[in-house]
Amino acid sequence: METKNDQTLSRRQLLKMAGVGGAGLLLGAGGVGTLFGTGVVSAKGSKAATAQPNADILPFYGTYQQGIITPQQDFIYFAAFDIIGKKQSDVRGLFEKWTAAAARMTQGETAGDETNNQHLPPTDTGEAIGLTPSKLTLTFGVGPTLFTKDGSDRFGLASKRPSQLADLPAFSADELQEEWSGGDIGVQVCANDPQVAFHAIRNLARIARGTAVIRWSQAGFQRTEKAAAQPGTARNLMGFKDGTGNPDVTDANAMNDVVWVQPSESKAWMTNGTYMIVRRIRMRIEEWDRSTLKDQEATFGRSRNSGAPIGGTDEFEKLDLEKKDASGKPLIPVDSHVALAHGDGKVRILRRSYSYTNGIDSKTGQLDTGLFFVCFNRDPLKQFVPMQTRLSKSDRLNEYIVHVGSAVFACLPGAAPGGFIGQQLF
Amino acid sequence: METKNDQTLSRRQLLKMAGVGGAGLLLGAGGVGTLFGTGVVSAKGSKAATAQPNADILPFYGTYQQGIITPQQDFIYFAAFDIIGKKQSDVRGLFEKWTAAAARMTQGETAGDETNNQHLPPTDTGEAIGLTPSKLTLTFGVGPTLFTKDGSDRFGLASKRPSQLADLPAFSADELQEEWSGGDIGVQVCANDPQVAFHAIRNLARIARGTAVIRWSQAGFQRTEKAAAQPGTARNLMGFKDGTGNPDVTDANAMNDVVWVQPSESKAWMTNGTYMIVRRIRMRIEEWDRSTLKDQEATFGRSRNSGAPIGGTDEFEKLDLEKKDASGKPLIPVDSHVALAHGDGKVRILRRSYSYTNGIDSKTGQLDTGLFFVCFNRDPLKQFVPMQTRLSKSDRLNEYIVHVGSAVFACLPGAAPGGFIGQQLF
Ligand code: HEM
Ligand code: HEM
Repeated sequence: METKNDQTLSRRQLLKMAGVGGAGLLLGAGGVGTLFGTGVVSAKGSKAATAQPNADILPFYGTYQQGIITPQQDFIYFAAFDIIGKKQSDVRGLFEKWTAAAARMTQGETAGDETNNQHLPPTDTGEAIGLTPSKLTLTFGVGPTLFTKDGSDRFGLASKRPSQLADLPAFSADELQEEWSGGDIGVQVCANDPQVAFHAIRNLARIARGTAVIRWSQAGFQRTEKAAAQPGTARNLMGFKDGTGNPDVTDANAMNDVVWVQPSESKAWMTNGTYMIVRRIRMRIEEWDRSTLKDQEATFGRSRNSGAPIGGTDEFEKLDLEKKDASGKPLIPVDSHVALAHGDGKVRILRRSYSYTNGIDSKTGQLDTGLFFVCFNRDPLKQFVPMQTRLSKSDRLNEYIVHVGSAVFACLPGAAPGGFIGQQLF
Repeated sequence: METKNDQTLSRRQLLKMAGVGGAGLLLGAGGVGTLFGTGVVSAKGSKAATAQPNADILPFYGTYQQGIITPQQDFIYFAAFDIIGKKQSDVRGLFEKWTAAAARMTQGETAGDETNNQHLPPTDTGEAIGLTPSKLTLTFGVGPTLFTKDGSDRFGLASKRPSQLADLPAFSADELQEEWSGGDIGVQVCANDPQVAFHAIRNLARIARGTAVIRWSQAGFQRTEKAAAQPGTARNLMGFKDGTGNPDVTDANAMNDVVWVQPSESKAWMTNGTYMIVRRIRMRIEEWDRSTLKDQEATFGRSRNSGAPIGGTDEFEKLDLEKKDASGKPLIPVDSHVALAHGDGKVRILRRSYSYTNGIDSKTGQLDTGLFFVCFNRDPLKQFVPMQTRLSKSDRLNEYIVHVGSAVFACLPGAAPGGFIGQQLF
């Protein structure tokens, strides 16, 4: 197969070429759609077919947006955008274009049809050529400032703001920085490959040129699934298993209760949507690393090794906050993180956080590293806000963390093929 | 298996427990060394045994340090340290401790023996518990400032500085920032898992407390091996295959020629060592993304799709800088990146770079993203410096990049079991 640089190639040809790269492998004519799309090469027993360990594609269209109850991928690339366009139709147009690109990219295709025209910039930025879809998901949300900013109804959307979408209150331990906060639009990109995730955000930013700009962004990771000796809960950078107490994403009732906005409890356009809250939470790991194992376990209320509640043996056993030690004191301290987050156990959220590391904080000389906290809930005013109010006041963990960034977004419902994300709103 | 929080457990017990986590799986007594060390559970047909996709361990001890001619792993975590200790014995002691920890961690063990004593901080920070070694490598180098700083022979090592280890000259296109430059010690950590890589640097920093502090650090990635539809050269964030022209790391003659310091060409302690140069190179991706395919290919001198030299068809075909087009002009522009980097082809370096992304540059509002360039060479004054001098003057690529960080380190030879990295120097 020859590379014909000066001719216009169809995307299909291009993808085939890109997929086989320098390996010189010839695909049987009509053998496959795209190498990206399926991750499977039809030529039986070919080296390529066996060299495709990850062919994972998650459906883009559906009742709900992807990336919410999706089991957590290995990487996140989050970006908050600000709209610089002036008209509602600018925003609507952006969501139309973004939806089309997102639908393509999640299927392992380029962001747009490639022309291979030498006299134009390539349609796609190219760094994901030859990579499998890697379970890429894109999740879109709109922030309070899309509706009203500095008192102005900038896009004629003010009356459509759901009461649940409001600026978060200031919490007592907050040290929020403008550079990690807010945004008219929030896009959560997750994938099992960091380059695939980066590629998606970058191409969205490119498509948005003239209409929206990135306000802030943060990459995050967890241990890769591949590196986990055992399947199970990943550990955060404090060395503790993180995610144990999450509701079961396969339980539709629980998801309706915790995550999905139900008909007529909010603005109609939010039905089947949810609210996403992101908090960039710096960990003072140097201090944490100097605390004793006992302190660490009392801070979370769980055992470091097993992840079980203090006094228990199994990670997933019920959290019993009534259990007492010999002297009659609660085994799980009342000001431990899980005791306070759990409360009476009736109000829950779905967490989907990642670790982050951004080099050294030039002010303190310490590692700028921590938890990029992401959660979804049906009503922030009834779920996240009361929970974080309790935590910010009394959580033992506050000695070792500081919230430096914050944003809240209303995540739109999913789109049907032919439709677009945001259709119900604009 | 029960978690006995208040007893002291042997590391072996602890590792076993950590490895099986909440899964409740019992290991046959004496079945395995550590779950980390081998990544293999002996209990035949157990779920755990099949759930161990990555058991990769690279040898730590040897003639050369690891992480240099090692095929590139998926992730890097690089840190430059400054010594705050006052005596040569402080530095020596640090290298002894670091060597011991590095040898352990690369074998998938914790940084030190875990006591599980409730009244002490855990020995290891814990975030890699349950993760396989993930081909972790640690590579140590010492910078010019370890020998002389501000004119002072701070550790009595000044006479041992090899002439090849000197501050790099200022190159014409440099816009270096102090916060991404220099360091008394450079540590390159690479692994197929970002959490494993982070864990290693963090534990080194912790061990160094009182003797050395992190001066700057940078995480980097490339496409994961798992996501590559085909094995082959990874693409950088400009969408081009990067690494094609590298010398063959399996060719011992080439490595002696390009990488390894030979006996008596430098200070004796550097024999079997090499020089590592790191450059944090920001890409102006917004501008790049607006340039035509033709410009992009002329910039590198290679085809974007195939990676072949312009006019060629195969990625790995010989770079022929003499080839002319119909009008008699060189097919590969003389000021293209490969033409200038290649030169007469006699002077080479071994590149081992990663992509990086650090959110938004608050000054420009653009993505702070690019190439974390890492290379190894036997003599920077004869290899990297003349090459970068040519590039900084005339490279077409300069329109789209800017060097913002720089450091050079003498990488010590490898250590033998019982010895330590740096033994020949101190
Ligand atoms: C750096 C900050 C944080 C760290 C390191 C952290 C870590 C943890 C850990 C280790 C657990 C126990 C295991 C588990 O159930 O996942 C936990 C539980 C939990 N955390 Fe956090 N967390 C942080 C911030 C937050 C925030 C900001 C919220 C919400 C406001 C939150 C809500 C919860 C909830 C709801 C639980 C489960 C409690 C239950 O069992 O019902 N966490 N967290
Ligand atoms: C952001 C900065 C850079 C980018 C994006 C970049 C990218 C590339 C690409 C795409 C190639 C062609 C494929 C290959 O052989 O790997 C290449 C080749 C090369 N680059 Fe760079 N490079 C950068 C900086 C540098 C620097 C600073 C040096 C050394 C001073 C360097 C030295 C080389 C060499 C030696 C080759 C191979 C030339 C040959 O074929 O003999 N590059 N680079």
